Amino acid sequence: MTDTVPVADLVDQNCHGVLRTELGLGTFEARLGAARAPAAPGTTFFDTQTGFAVRRWCPPLLGLEAHCPPASYLARRRELGVAETSRRLLRATGVSAHLVDTGLPGDLTGPAELASAAGSDAREIVRLEILAEHVADTSGTVDTFLVNLGEAVHTAASSAVAFTSVGAAPYAAPEPPGPVRVRAAAGRWLARREAERRAARRGTAGREGGGAPVEPELLDHLRWSAVACGIPLQLRLGTADPARLADFAAATEGHGCDLVLLHGYPHHRQTAALAGRHPHVYADLGAVPARTGARAAAVLAEIMELAPFGKLLFSSGARALPELHLVGARQFREALGRVLGAWVEDGAWTRQDAARVATMIGSGNARRVYGLG
Amino acid sequence: MTDTVPVADLVDQNCHGVLRTELGLGTFEARLGAARAPAAPGTTFFDTQTGFAVRRWCPPLLGLEAHCPPASYLARRRELGVAETSRRLLRATGVSAHLVDTGLPGDLTGPAELASAAGSDAREIVRLEILAEHVADTSGTVDTFLVNLGEAVHTAASSAVAFTSVGAAPYAAPEPPGPVRVRAAAGRWLARREAERRAARRGTAGREGGGAPVEPELLDHLRWSAVACGIPLQLRLGTADPARLADFAAATEGHGCDLVLLHGYPHHRQTAALAGRHPHVYADLGAVPARTGARAAAVLAEIMELAPFGKLLFSSGARALPELHLVGARQFREALGRVLGAWVEDGAWTRQDAARVATMIGSGNARRVYGLG
Amino acid sequence: MTDTVPVADLVDQNCHGVLRTELGLGTFEARLGAARAPAAPGTTFFDTQTGFAVRRWCPPLLGLEAHCPPASYLARRRELGVAETSRRLLRATGVSAHLVDTGLPGDLTGPAELASAAGSDAREIVRLEILAEHVADTSGTVDTFLVNLGEAVHTAASSAVAFTSVGAAPYAAPEPPGPVRVRAAAGRWLARREAERRAARRGTAGREGGGAPVEPELLDHLRWSAVACGIPLQLRLGTADPARLADFAAATEGHGCDLVLLHGYPHHRQTAALAGRHPHVYADLGAVPARTGARAAAVLAEIMELAPFGKLLFSSGARALPELHLVGARQFREALGRVLGAWVEDGAWTRQDAARVATMIGSGNARRVYGLG
Repeated sequence: MTDTVPVADLVDQNCHGVLRTELGLGTFEARLGAARAPAAPGTTFFDTQTGFAVRRWCPPLLGLEAHCPPASYLARRRELGVAETSRRLLRATGVSAHLVDTGLPGDLTGPAELASAAGSDAREIVRLEILAEHVADTSGTVDTFLVNLGEAVHTAASSAVAFTSVGAAPYAAPEPPGPVRVRAAAGRWLARREAERRAARRGTAGREGGGAPVEPELLDHLRWSAVACGIPLQLRLGTADPARLADFAAATEGHGCDLVLLHGYPHHRQTAALAGRHPHVYADLGAVPARTGARAAAVLAEIMELAPFGKLLFSSGARALPELHLVGARQFREALGRVLGAWVEDGAWTRQDAARVATMIGSGNARRVYGLG
Repeated sequence: MTDTVPVADLVDQNCHGVLRTELGLGTFEARLGAARAPAAPGTTFFDTQTGFAVRRWCPPLLGLEAHCPPASYLARRRELGVAETSRRLLRATGVSAHLVDTGLPGDLTGPAELASAAGSDAREIVRLEILAEHVADTSGTVDTFLVNLGEAVHTAASSAVAFTSVGAAPYAAPEPPGPVRVRAAAGRWLARREAERRAARRGTAGREGGGAPVEPELLDHLRWSAVACGIPLQLRLGTADPARLADFAAATEGHGCDLVLLHGYPHHRQTAALAGRHPHVYADLGAVPARTGARAAAVLAEIMELAPFGKLLFSSGARALPELHLVGARQFREALGRVLGAWVEDGAWTRQDAARVATMIGSGNARRVYGLG
Repeated sequence: MTDTVPVADLVDQNCHGVLRTELGLGTFEARLGAARAPAAPGTTFFDTQTGFAVRRWCPPLLGLEAHCPPASYLARRRELGVAETSRRLLRATGVSAHLVDTGLPGDLTGPAELASAAGSDAREIVRLEILAEHVADTSGTVDTFLVNLGEAVHTAASSAVAFTSVGAAPYAAPEPPGPVRVRAAAGRWLARREAERRAARRGTAGREGGGAPVEPELLDHLRWSAVACGIPLQLRLGTADPARLADFAAATEGHGCDLVLLHGYPHHRQTAALAGRHPHVYADLGAVPARTGARAAAVLAEIMELAPFGKLLFSSGARALPELHLVGARQFREALGRVLGAWVEDGAWTRQDAARVATMIGSGNARRVYGLG
């Protein structure tokens, strides 16, 4: 058994609410995978690192044996009810503050409800794309829309802890687009939304749910507006190469706004390099520890190669299932403790330094960056 | 010593025949490397992970000590003869079924001969590019060619276990090209082949062996024709980023054809992510365990981060040397056993789950995907 | 404790001189990081893998305890003086030959002074971009410039041990640009330099220090001129994908010039694959072992997957601080010894092979490639 370093407090700097509704085996399983489609015939999303990690960590908290069959777990979950299950799992995360991206659809708990269940503090992260949709819903013309949008961003910045943006592509322009282009992009987007609404009324809508994605130049305008506000801007990388954000990172240096790159896997080493290059760039692994299960320590060790330790943050990236909150926290805690412990054991690090870095990554860096108490 | 989980049966879902001819030290060495050129002055391809793995696993099967000098091994190999050597090495793989891509040039054993030497079942994988060349050789006009090609694909699908395509580039178009473009591409390709044949007759041929590569749009037509047949389509990634196949993967979902991505290293994590995103996408490491030798377990663990365990397959990717079949199987078996064993030892997985996943990846998934007995 | 294989002699095939001036805590810290900017508020570059590695290995050589606080280390460093500190650290590297890229600005020791402090042999590597700047400074017209440049490259090749090129981008054209294009590029570059000089005289210069980067086609001309000289050409990859050099590597095969790819992280697996594909391509990790500290063994193991062992070289990539020379050598030695030791312990390699490969990578390959005694 390798030595480990304890990771006490955690600040989850990017997560989402949990579902308020009871789930059957199939709907629960669907939430475990990364696919929008069901698992392939003859396979199940329980047979993934996430599935195995859920089966490892969650059943004991509901009074079952670790690794029990999924059906037993779901039965027990329904027996306890979704509220009690959520409460037990969220409290076991040891997360003292949740920064909640409220931009996901579905019947999810908001920050206050999540905090109450978890016994934590919670703050809201405002998703720029959703903010734009809300403003579009209540603005008549392109001009009104743009004025209202500017005010909405400004207002959000005074209460939200951060902005986040997922975008269609991770590319962000290295300079704010000019007013003519922004106006044109806004016009195209509003027109497309109007067309979709009409199609929906006639029952001929194509894309399910979503609505037209924000036009790229309008999104750039939004991001640069957010940068001007001074609160951190989180950017989700998906599986794209963060090299695509290199110019944006260089251009925003010195603007007083921190950029937090979320979930850079499998390009997390590049993400770490970017965090080492610019004082205002930060990185985390998001849902990766929960997604990679038994491999979480190996992946975490990779992002710790180039990133200065003051630039790494914890988040669970969890959405919908309290199990993902729990697994994200447990896997991260175990992984970090194990990685640091091995370095102490090798004589590469002192135990004091390791404990200090554990606190920085788990909570200290986030408290500093987001100005938390 | 770390715990290991036994991996019993193996289905090798992508391999090639072995050479029927005796080999000297130099010709044997050349088959170990990835280069078309000889090793650099002062170096040898025996000083590679593959070379060391061959020296580790093969000599004992010919009655020599592990790690004996290459010259002793080759001498013993010639003494036993190529047939007996192949028989011993292939039987020691523990592979019960070989899916054989017959599209390589050279004096290689076909599926039946390989099966007989190995004591296995063997099935043929038809390489689309080779199929097109055969049809081109016997078709007079562009129109005849296209009609014959359609029939050939259809006929092949009724006997072959899968199609494979290597392509010049890993890109595949997200929709079938229209008939006008296909006809034009076919015309260009047939004309270029004709020009090459004439040059060859005059002794002025440029490219050695190969012949003109299939025109990209004709290749897209072939791939989409294969997709329509319903048997799995294997795509070799080379060292290209599988992101280039993301659109093709999305476009073929729901068409009833499974895509198997071969040998995605060093982009195997992206390959695994793609296999997690689409129900019809599968992944394996191909020749990577044999190529990376002592590192096979580390690489295998990486592809097991995001891929659902029901979406991973074993193959050796071995070509020409029975040693590569043996090393591919041994390295894979040892690597998988060790990776799973470590997770069991950590308490992250149960031994039962580990054994079940070992069977799935080693043979079960392949039996299901290819409809093997 | 894992078994390790001793790594005796080292040839550092790419490094830079050390500063002749005393350093305070802040200026020392700035040299540890990869950023041009200072560390983010609330963070320090001592909290990086490099910082921890410096604190691990260097204090004992100055008579302090390992991991002592940075302020104590810097105080002791000033007490001893920069010359004595450099001598102690450089001698402890165990490097017997330094190949020194003299193309960095600043008050750095040259090859002879470095060799004298280190007790090693030193040879010069000529940076093509700097060579071009020197020639430009003393040439009146474009025609004179190009003639002088050709002569300068030729002369440098007779005394230097290698050329190096960092370029703005890692892309290198797969064929030499024609004379008309080269002449045009040279003209543009000389004109831009002239404009900058004038601006500098008027005090309105924009870019600090640097000067206009060499025009891409002029750089291609320089690289192809270097290839024609027959001494090795080192190419620094930065964080770019070496796939961008694939065409250049293919085109230069058989020209009698070895290409050495430096510091390919995080694309070092692709770099290794390229070294396996072409007989004239070599790879090393440059400053990566010093930059990744406790992770050096893990990264080194990755580049040892596909690269033939006769194609891997050691370098420290160290610049300015003798601490980086020491840490580069120590981390590399420890990492290689540990990686090879683990493979011996597993039975994958024999101890004799491991010792032989350690010598090849540490010094033997470099002695052969650079024709050192």
